[in-house]
Amino acid sequence: MIYVVFVEPESPGNIGFLARTMKNFGLTNLVLINPCELKNESYFQAMHARDVVSNSVTYDSLENFLIDAKIDSAVGTTGTAGGSYNVARIAVSPEQLADSINYQGNVALIFGREGNGLSNQEIKLCDVIVSIPTHDYYPILNITHAAAIIFYEMFKREKSYPVDGLEAATKAEKESLMIYMEDIIQKLGYPTHKSKNASLVFKRIIERAFISGREAHTLKGTLRRINARIKEKGNEGEK
Amino acid sequence: MIYVVFVEPESPGNIGFLARTMKNFGLTNLVLINPCELKNESYFQAMHARDVVSNSVTYDSLENFLIDAKIDSAVGTTGTAGGSYNVARIAVSPEQLADSINYQGNVALIFGREGNGLSNQEIKLCDVIVSIPTHDYYPILNITHAAAIIFYEMFKREKSYPVDGLEAATKAEKESLMIYMEDIIQKLGYPTHKSKNASLVFKRIIERAFISGREAHTLKGTLRRINARIKEKGNEGEK
Repeated sequence: MIYVVFVEPESPGNIGFLARTMKNFGLTNLVLINPCELKNESYFQAMHARDVVSNSVTYDSLENFLIDAKIDSAVGTTGTAGGSYNVARIAVSPEQLADSINYQGNVALIFGREGNGLSNQEIKLCDVIVSIPTHDYYPILNITHAAAIIFYEMFKREKSYPVDGLEAATKAEKESLMIYMEDIIQKLGYPTHKSKNASLVFKRIIERAFISGREAHTLKGTLRRINARIKEKGNEGEK
Repeated sequence: MIYVVFVEPESPGNIGFLARTMKNFGLTNLVLINPCELKNESYFQAMHARDVVSNSVTYDSLENFLIDAKIDSAVGTTGTAGGSYNVARIAVSPEQLADSINYQGNVALIFGREGNGLSNQEIKLCDVIVSIPTHDYYPILNITHAAAIIFYEMFKREKSYPVDGLEAATKAEKESLMIYMEDIIQKLGYPTHKSKNASLVFKRIIERAFISGREAHTLKGTLRRINARIKEKGNEGEK
């Protein structure tokens, strides 16, 4: 079970933004510690995640919640990851968290006050601290944007990362493209090193484009026709 | 140069949230297309990124900006990635975008209206579409949270991402590739709709791969030779 814990939220709107972001990534258990009063704005900003706001539960202290919900791993978030002098704030990245977190246990993702984040005492209650790499210009993210990034990294790992409409071409499909292309290139009268380079460049482009199966099919048709068109003009002699 | 483009923002606050998120990840060039009026809330929500808001530039149409700024890669964002039959909306993931984007060129990251996102016409102006994997419960992210996730993925890569120092292919270089490819395709005896699709698929692959100038040069050489090889076998009759 994954809980999202917002410690002493100061802005009713941010509770709504957080609820919406949670639902976007399939999270529904919102816990509020000493929150400001829920206002219409909380429900308005939640949009279609009003249910997450209205089903939220409130506690008077983080410690009481962690005990009550039998949390196995308490994950604290901080915008100010400490160096080696502040061991308590040494942080992992959202990626490292998503890779290592055990979704079987009770997990609490804990976000601090908009203004001052989590106190050192609250940080001490956490088993893991996660921090998002940001630019030195302005390292402090808005709390709900930080949450979106962490939820997204976890969601990415949980699912096998499907992007609508893009069914990736298989290795075999890409290899058959290369077979046609190399066959074509070989007929173009390049010196060997140049034809090697031409086919390498084509391969790199195919790989970087993450082409879909459908695109591979279309492109294969094109290459097949090109190949046939060159062949049927009697280029066998060049083989 | 990376530009962040917000098409017809409806909420002054969201302009501020976007500006803050940009600066969190080292982005500073904000472009507003037909925006709502900037209000105090825009600057308030920007927090320490007020400079990004006040330095933003405004255009009356997306197309005019893309031309004016000599954008090499226009990256559109959508919460509704099309299936394989809606080629225009076939999307890559933020991770795939971050892996393949070439930071040497002029890149526009384009975000649509809070309500309706980007129109199909605006999507057609984009070279690449990126979509964030979300839960079916509630797939549509708030625009500034979607932006934060995409900026974060790019920022993560920018350090480790092997930018091999090669210049990105210019729009002109990519267009000259398309001229050769369309010339070739036209000789393959496809029915019109099939040749249109074949060339569209090729264009999307070239764009999504963010090919370098050198790769464009090599590929152009290959296409030129293919084209000549088909020609010199006396296919003029098919023109």
